[in-house]
Amino acid sequence: MRQFIVLGHDAPTTAEFALDDLSGAGRLDVLCRCVGAAVFLSHGIRESVRIHLVIADEYTIRFDSDTLRRLYPDERTIAARIRDALDQREDAIGHLPAEVSPGMALYRFGFEATLDAVADEGTVVQLHADGTPLPAASPPSDPVFVLSDHTDFTDREAELLSEQADQRLRVGPETLHADQTITVAHNWLDTAGYSEY
Amino acid sequence: MRQFIVLGHDAPTTAEFALDDLSGAGRLDVLCRCVGAAVFLSHGIRESVRIHLVIADEYTIRFDSDTLRRLYPDERTIAARIRDALDQREDAIGHLPAEVSPGMALYRFGFEATLDAVADEGTVVQLHADGTPLPAASPPSDPVFVLSDHTDFTDREAELLSEQADQRLRVGPETLHADQTITVAHNWLDTAGYSEY
Repeated sequence: MRQFIVLGHDAPTTAEFALDDLSGAGRLDVLCRCVGAAVFLSHGIRESVRIHLVIADEYTIRFDSDTLRRLYPDERTIAARIRDALDQREDAIGHLPAEVSPGMALYRFGFEATLDAVADEGTVVQLHADGTPLPAASPPSDPVFVLSDHTDFTDREAELLSEQADQRLRVGPETLHADQTITVAHNWLDTAGYSEY
Repeated sequence: MRQFIVLGHDAPTTAEFALDDLSGAGRLDVLCRCVGAAVFLSHGIRESVRIHLVIADEYTIRFDSDTLRRLYPDERTIAARIRDALDQREDAIGHLPAEVSPGMALYRFGFEATLDAVADEGTVVQLHADGTPLPAASPPSDPVFVLSDHTDFTDREAELLSEQADQRLRVGPETLHADQTITVAHNWLDTAGYSEY
């Protein structure tokens, strides 16, 4: 299983946003591209991938590639599904999520609760300018990559992540968008031991 | 200079398409994400990148990262700029492009003419299942990557590409979307000689 947690600091917490202006809706376009990068291949969906969008530290929307249905990679379609999820936020109570549609659930969890829950399931990876360059690192089992949207981690988020991180990696010399980082991470995992592919 | 040519087989040749349904507009969403992947970093634009969108083998829209202005990475904004370009298609005559806006021009060129023009400027890379895996290959100077949208190259396009290709590379064992491939190619070039980054 590969997992990604993406922090959407300014993302809307209600369904009251316009699909015509995703950038204006707290840069929801970035989060939508993250979902696409995480779950889609050309003409297919990856197996065993989960992506958790943390919405304004209040809700977390989980996409599970193994059970997702009727999702398409364009930003607007993904945003419409996020809107559906937020529309059902009242159904998420305590640890019980709102089951939005196959493969999608909304939890009343902020970053700390989501990270706590997911950290036990794999190897938490912190992406950091001082980390080991990907080509020099060994892919961990069941990696959990934690990423931020267009803004940096807050001090508190960075602290929580440092406490949980099992591995520190560096994607490259350029600072990529979160969705681009997901694509690079997938390819790194896909091609580890490249002589065999 | 890094260059990407992306073939949009079903992309619209006029400005008569809806920004609300880019997927339905010949999968223009794929081409928009390709532009984003090619030119954007987090909080910035890459230097010395050109991406050429070949529209239904009839027009080619060129984006030049060094002179682009007021472009944002969400699909809808990029699609609106493509629509502006197509709206000025009558101004592209022979080898003279329509200058759409800073960093964007539309040429009355199909794939063959675009490939001929760009091939002289660099090393044409063909991505192929039998190519050399990226980690085992040396990055070429001034690479020109040629990609297809959601559909395969036609036999004629594959033939043209094979004739011009200087290098055959394999991105990985999974078949990625064109925009994901661009992101991986950039990262490969960014991190070549990783011990130094």
